[in-house]
Amino acid sequence: MAMMTGKEYVESLRAMKLRVYMFGKRVENPVDDPILRPSVNSVRMTYDLAQGPNYKALMTATSHLTGETINRFTHIHQSTEDLVNKVKMQRLLGQVTAACFQRCVGMDAINAVYSTTYEIDQKHGTSYHENFRKFVAEAQTKDWTIDGAMTDPKGDRSLPPHKQEDPDMFLHVVERRPDGIVVRGAKAHQTGMCNSHQVLVMPTQAMGPDDKDYAVSFSAPADAEGLFMIVGRQSCDTRKLENTDIDVGNAQYGGVELLVVFDDVFIPNENIYLNGETEFATMMVERFAGYHRQSYGGCKVGVGDVLIGASAVAADYNGVAKASHVKDKLIEMIHLNETMYSCGIACSAEGTKTASGNYLIDLLLANVCKQNVTRFPYEMARIAEDLAGGSVGTCLSEADLRGEFTGPWVAKYMKNGTGTTAENRMRILRLIENLSLGSGAVGYRTESLHGAGSPQAQRVMIARQGDIEGKKKLAKRIAHVKED
Amino acid sequence: MAMMTGKEYVESLRAMKLRVYMFGKRVENPVDDPILRPSVNSVRMTYDLAQGPNYKALMTATSHLTGETINRFTHIHQSTEDLVNKVKMQRLLGQVTAACFQRCVGMDAINAVYSTTYEIDQKHGTSYHENFRKFVAEAQTKDWTIDGAMTDPKGDRSLPPHKQEDPDMFLHVVERRPDGIVVRGAKAHQTGMCNSHQVLVMPTQAMGPDDKDYAVSFSAPADAEGLFMIVGRQSCDTRKLENTDIDVGNAQYGGVELLVVFDDVFIPNENIYLNGETEFATMMVERFAGYHRQSYGGCKVGVGDVLIGASAVAADYNGVAKASHVKDKLIEMIHLNETMYSCGIACSAEGTKTASGNYLIDLLLANVCKQNVTRFPYEMARIAEDLAGGSVGTCLSEADLRGEFTGPWVAKYMKNGTGTTAENRMRILRLIENLSLGSGAVGYRTESLHGAGSPQAQRVMIARQGDIEGKKKLAKRIAHVKED
Amino acid sequence: MAMMTGKEYVESLRAMKLRVYMFGKRVENPVDDPILRPSVNSVRMTYDLAQGPNYKALMTATSHLTGETINRFTHIHQSTEDLVNKVKMQRLLGQVTAACFQRCVGMDAINAVYSTTYEIDQKHGTSYHENFRKFVAEAQTKDWTIDGAMTDPKGDRSLPPHKQEDPDMFLHVVERRPDGIVVRGAKAHQTGMCNSHQVLVMPTQAMGPDDKDYAVSFSAPADAEGLFMIVGRQSCDTRKLENTDIDVGNAQYGGVELLVVFDDVFIPNENIYLNGETEFATMMVERFAGYHRQSYGGCKVGVGDVLIGASAVAADYNGVAKASHVKDKLIEMIHLNETMYSCGIACSAEGTKTASGNYLIDLLLANVCKQNVTRFPYEMARIAEDLAGGSVGTCLSEADLRGEFTGPWVAKYMKNGTGTTAENRMRILRLIENLSLGSGAVGYRTESLHGAGSPQAQRVMIARQGDIEGKKKLAKRIAHVKED
Amino acid sequence: MAMMTGKEYVESLRAMKLRVYMFGKRVENPVDDPILRPSVNSVRMTYDLAQGPNYKALMTATSHLTGETINRFTHIHQSTEDLVNKVKMQRLLGQVTAACFQRCVGMDAINAVYSTTYEIDQKHGTSYHENFRKFVAEAQTKDWTIDGAMTDPKGDRSLPPHKQEDPDMFLHVVERRPDGIVVRGAKAHQTGMCNSHQVLVMPTQAMGPDDKDYAVSFSAPADAEGLFMIVGRQSCDTRKLENTDIDVGNAQYGGVELLVVFDDVFIPNENIYLNGETEFATMMVERFAGYHRQSYGGCKVGVGDVLIGASAVAADYNGVAKASHVKDKLIEMIHLNETMYSCGIACSAEGTKTASGNYLIDLLLANVCKQNVTRFPYEMARIAEDLAGGSVGTCLSEADLRGEFTGPWVAKYMKNGTGTTAENRMRILRLIENLSLGSGAVGYRTESLHGAGSPQAQRVMIARQGDIEGKKKLAKRIAHVKED
Repeated sequence: MAMMTGKEYVESLRAMKLRVYMFGKRVENPVDDPILRPSVNSVRMTYDLAQGPNYKALMTATSHLTGETINRFTHIHQSTEDLVNKVKMQRLLGQVTAACFQRCVGMDAINAVYSTTYEIDQKHGTSYHENFRKFVAEAQTKDWTIDGAMTDPKGDRSLPPHKQEDPDMFLHVVERRPDGIVVRGAKAHQTGMCNSHQVLVMPTQAMGPDDKDYAVSFSAPADAEGLFMIVGRQSCDTRKLENTDIDVGNAQYGGVELLVVFDDVFIPNENIYLNGETEFATMMVERFAGYHRQSYGGCKVGVGDVLIGASAVAADYNGVAKASHVKDKLIEMIHLNETMYSCGIACSAEGTKTASGNYLIDLLLANVCKQNVTRFPYEMARIAEDLAGGSVGTCLSEADLRGEFTGPWVAKYMKNGTGTTAENRMRILRLIENLSLGSGAVGYRTESLHGAGSPQAQRVMIARQGDIEGKKKLAKRIAHVKED
Repeated sequence: MAMMTGKEYVESLRAMKLRVYMFGKRVENPVDDPILRPSVNSVRMTYDLAQGPNYKALMTATSHLTGETINRFTHIHQSTEDLVNKVKMQRLLGQVTAACFQRCVGMDAINAVYSTTYEIDQKHGTSYHENFRKFVAEAQTKDWTIDGAMTDPKGDRSLPPHKQEDPDMFLHVVERRPDGIVVRGAKAHQTGMCNSHQVLVMPTQAMGPDDKDYAVSFSAPADAEGLFMIVGRQSCDTRKLENTDIDVGNAQYGGVELLVVFDDVFIPNENIYLNGETEFATMMVERFAGYHRQSYGGCKVGVGDVLIGASAVAADYNGVAKASHVKDKLIEMIHLNETMYSCGIACSAEGTKTASGNYLIDLLLANVCKQNVTRFPYEMARIAEDLAGGSVGTCLSEADLRGEFTGPWVAKYMKNGTGTTAENRMRILRLIENLSLGSGAVGYRTESLHGAGSPQAQRVMIARQGDIEGKKKLAKRIAHVKED
Repeated sequence: MAMMTGKEYVESLRAMKLRVYMFGKRVENPVDDPILRPSVNSVRMTYDLAQGPNYKALMTATSHLTGETINRFTHIHQSTEDLVNKVKMQRLLGQVTAACFQRCVGMDAINAVYSTTYEIDQKHGTSYHENFRKFVAEAQTKDWTIDGAMTDPKGDRSLPPHKQEDPDMFLHVVERRPDGIVVRGAKAHQTGMCNSHQVLVMPTQAMGPDDKDYAVSFSAPADAEGLFMIVGRQSCDTRKLENTDIDVGNAQYGGVELLVVFDDVFIPNENIYLNGETEFATMMVERFAGYHRQSYGGCKVGVGDVLIGASAVAADYNGVAKASHVKDKLIEMIHLNETMYSCGIACSAEGTKTASGNYLIDLLLANVCKQNVTRFPYEMARIAEDLAGGSVGTCLSEADLRGEFTGPWVAKYMKNGTGTTAENRMRILRLIENLSLGSGAVGYRTESLHGAGSPQAQRVMIARQGDIEGKKKLAKRIAHVKED
Repeated sequence: MAMMTGKEYVESLRAMKLRVYMFGKRVENPVDDPILRPSVNSVRMTYDLAQGPNYKALMTATSHLTGETINRFTHIHQSTEDLVNKVKMQRLLGQVTAACFQRCVGMDAINAVYSTTYEIDQKHGTSYHENFRKFVAEAQTKDWTIDGAMTDPKGDRSLPPHKQEDPDMFLHVVERRPDGIVVRGAKAHQTGMCNSHQVLVMPTQAMGPDDKDYAVSFSAPADAEGLFMIVGRQSCDTRKLENTDIDVGNAQYGGVELLVVFDDVFIPNENIYLNGETEFATMMVERFAGYHRQSYGGCKVGVGDVLIGASAVAADYNGVAKASHVKDKLIEMIHLNETMYSCGIACSAEGTKTASGNYLIDLLLANVCKQNVTRFPYEMARIAEDLAGGSVGTCLSEADLRGEFTGPWVAKYMKNGTGTTAENRMRILRLIENLSLGSGAVGYRTESLHGAGSPQAQRVMIARQGDIEGKKKLAKRIAHVKED
């Protein structure tokens, strides 16, 4: 059996020697840290749900390398059906965690590197693809969570990598040995890196001929020597330290993003997948970004389902569920959410086979998908706050509810007369706060905006893929424009 | 060969005795009337494109009834691939006509009636489905254009059909004979009825037990005795009488909508597909509306491609194509257009098999698709007018360009210094006017809003299909809401 | 008495020898031409309403030059109250004409030229301001309608005026004589020029030192020798020739825009207000544009009031006035309309005194005003079409209603059961069509977009006036940014 | 001198015996509590700025009661100029605090109660207005900060106050004595109550004849016997306890909202301003809401100025300030911000005199103002997060920056090569986080949505004030509708 249980996953993390820093200090036991644990729980759900029979079709797949049943998160997509099922799996996990479950980035990275290495080898006679197949087979067998790492700090954005004043603004090779390379640099915004077994590094943008040392892709264990990470702090992060259930909003699940530093990490040859073939940096970036933009058409939709549900419950608790404007706002939320989902499904259903044999999403539609995701969750969060009522911003604390003097007053005045308790009402208000302002908002809003590339990145791709010249011809034909 | 050529199609229309009225008078020869002809040309394109090898995969299908190669517009969808290909075919036709090609409504109607009749027969032991299979087989063999007719005038909307002061506000049975029924009433907004061979009538809304006479579905030849139609007038319609090429904007293609009156039309038994089984009216309506809402994710996207192209050409001609705000506006147009397309594709790819064997689109996503279509073409038209520049509203006439005195002045001052002629610039401006203000705007804007149901109709369906109760459960689970 | 009656205005036009071309031919009697007459009627309303006591406060003012009571359209604003009253007068006229009443452009031009000439004279010792005061005094006494003319064809937009291949792409001085200058060129999109007594020409953009011949401002009679104009054709323009009342939508009022050609027109010295002082071109342009952008916060709001009213009547006639989504859509229309009005009022109330003594609007807020006007009327038109129902695109013709055979059928099926007649319903549908698709849409939509400068022109001004540097300082202070 | 210095204000608060609870416990010294102190600092700014000469015109006024120079926050508006200056004062304070400065609600309450009491007395012969003038005179002389208190918990919203199961869901009179009344209930979402000297209570909605005990308005000292309050917790509130400067984003200023409980508070007769005259509840509510909706056109605009500035600095620090899409997004932020400001100015400039002599804003435009405020800050926050880049969600902590091991890495990788330090970049990112996700977001977003009434409340008022019947008449006149 190639798949771990959730429990085994947590134990496998505990067995690693991850170097994680937070608030300026090393975290001795990241797995059990109260701020980081919700993030572990979210990833764990990708293991738990793959165990039972209910979600087998979505959560698992048959490896084309080993023939074994594997977790879909380690799968190389073999059909458009696989692409569609990926999106459905992501929606499911968003629904049950209401958070970022972090494992997508690795799935998207392995599929991008898989097809790109094939094409590099075809041109350059290298053996990256063979290396990479072995890596994937091992990832499938060991059921790894992999962090796909792309975004460099970038420094002065008007200059290419090799012209930066500080050469480490882009991750690069600092030494070449017979048995491998030594790399230095950092990757920012790395989702879930402290819950991962491996990291798969890719370049962050197009490279010119002089950027050879920067055109590098490889994998490494998350606890490789020289590698460490610092946790980014999120809105309301320390509420998780308060040992309360209500105020966190989503007590069990979360996501986390880190800065990963490569302070001279050695990479053996067999784990290198790009090394100086600068012209392939773009292909790797665009394919990874494309897959990851597709992903947002699933995961954020699932989280959106929870937000819609929470808004509907809040309306129930406020006693206004039958007001026509309330119903209409819920409809609008569903409409926006399903529009994103439609884009996720469409770019999958319109996927095509790459030279390497795996399936790639339709790049135009995947970028359109993500562009909508940079807009709609924000409007959905606004509507959710509207339906929640002003109490979403002024809700009293769980400590107030439990306080000897304050408790009865909170129970009386936060209750409202709608047949539920003050506590339940506060729970739902806090969940909405979590997704619109709190720690969940980093995943639901900020990540929707910047994850897999900021809005302008998609616009550049839409311009490139949109075939404006072809459309001009259509117009000229209809208008009978006369050209020589 | 089951398929007509475009020429044969036109001749087949000419052979009919259609009763068409326009501007208060009977049109003796509708096929060659300059106002109606562009509409014929658009439908003709559905025949022409099916002839060649280029678009065979999209334009044709294999009949599951006869095994013959047929025009896809007469096809009963046998797979989700068929549903997807339908949308692609519609986009193609939108691109080459920049107009409503009118034949979709019949395709959507036959697929809705096909599956509904099967389910009626299952419950009531009737033989509507058998009747209908014969009708479809003939339609396929004779390559008919069919007008699907649903919308009644409706009268007082607060009352059901049988309570209307004027009983004809909903089409109904006025006489029952052994060999058939006699029907009376009218269907409004009938796209392309004057270019059709047959009309397939369906009820327009849910019916109660007392509305038996109004729960009726049947087919009839477009020139049946007692049936006549009146042409709705469109913005700029009479420009088509001016015998000019430029000012019309789209000289060759167009769409047209009519009021169809059934002034006691006899329908033989074999052409009746619903007759009093009131509880099935809703199913027929929702399925037809669902298919037709899917359609808009194809046809309007194709027209949108032309509008994007025209806007890009206008920007070229205005010498501003490189301005960043211009490029960004074109990107926005593409983004909106492809979002609608994604919805069209998604509701198709997520289609499911009905009891009768044909495929139905995902109803939630189809309604989401259409809801977006009620918004985005308007914004696209606004951007197009922006990119066109003020001349889109003040463009001089073709007569000015040809005028002895005015001609040279128009050539000089409408030219601009960008390497094209005043005439070409005027052609593109007029095309944009056609789609945003002119006769094409009825198809591109008004029809996008109201065709296949006005915006609120989709919102009602989204509410019904959106599973709000399920979403509430998701939220309560995450928030640990405590209920007994 | 300095003010003409409406009737006297029409007679004064008839007395002029205007050279107007339309459809390639000279219009012998522009005043009585059925296509042009509604445009005359709109301007006439500015005379008629100034006569009675009801609107005296809005429609008239006391001249600071002559002390006489004058029409506000010829007034030099003496206070912020004058600026506010201007906007209210415009809203009133929009309400009673549902069209562009065309006289604003001259009012805005005289106020811009008034203050700019003062400042030119201060710097250059010229006597433009004295010239201009005389012109204004005459305009007030004779109650002229003046066309303010700014927009040149522009040619290649990447080149300045003096570098254009065709030197006439910007209007310019071709000859300098002791007693005046001779000018050549054209002004595009000139609203109401065929109903005007005078034209006041201004440069269209910033000018460099080499553009001396292009930096020219002057006035001339509308029937000056060498001056002629060609009428731009509008959507549905020829419906006005059909001699019907209903189909036009707005049978009595309209607006019209023309290309005005200056084919070597002589301008005597006393009518010159800028002649080579290139550095003042920008001031004149920005002030005129500012005033005119303010204007849109009045006139389009008035037209919007009519559109809101028409939509509400359509909802009444459709029997859906009580549906909550209908009420909500009307609220949204009002909200958008009053937002534009608020901007019109605000830029007026925040106006300031110029060196010359007249009052200038707040430039930032005036540009913000117009930017909203480039968006909201489009959304309002979309909502209006929504509330009108599909019949707005398929409405039968007045000829159908009057037809012997068709008439009774139209009366029956266009009526609906809501207590009004088919004719009234058609009248309201046609009015909505007029403003959203028809000839009124050129004024309500296209002009809202491009009049007084296209959207990007306002964005440039907003950037310039928005004090981003000051705002950065505010942020750095709050964030305790540490800079040397 | 009637005005306190900021320091005196703080001391005056310290001298009070406020009963404030937070996290279930009594706060012994609210003034110096680190979570509450930023809120005190914001109010203090209203005192400090009134001292110097720079802002005298905006910050002070001359009392119409005492003739003294007073803080404008205690002023009864005597002209439309006063109304406009109020908005400008609010924008100024938003700019220097980037927070809610809380004192507006009292200013808005005194102006609403002032004119309403006058009209009650006129009708009922009561002496509320005389009582209230004395209260205002004292407030002006003592330079009080007053909390205007309106929103009750409301219980079951489908029932009127007197029918609630728990009678305390609306604040009400529980005992009537010769010298006064005893009141019980609570007011929710009370901004700044723990920094106020007095509370001015008003009813929360329209009342019926049976709601006499609930139609009550009065003032009381904030430390009256029986009155206590519980602090609502905000996103990121406990960051203020971390003793850091950076992570809070806005270390110095903030706002806070509380639940205020009236547990049988005695109110002497001279402080009662409404007592059972139920038909005046609506007037008091609408006027207070109107003034407060105007306020948002000032204060939130000022905060928006800071957010725009922060976004521009972030773009500078990211090295992308010259990218056209970045410039365009800043323009859009300014445009939205100034649109809200225009509405604030317009409803002020269009104000009218009440029977009591003070000035009331235009109610329609004030509601339009607030409706825009429920939308635009959300879009501005989204754009700000876009311009900030992904680091706004993953920014490392100040502790990381100060950490011995982590510090140098943070300094290196958070710096970017743009000439500023990592620390400055983090400061700006945290300020944007503060306003979009953090404790400032409660003021900038949630309060913009729900403060002064939720969006639907404004829509109800817009419907009521929008004169739809008048607009219908305009449309019918243009369309020549024929009615008897």
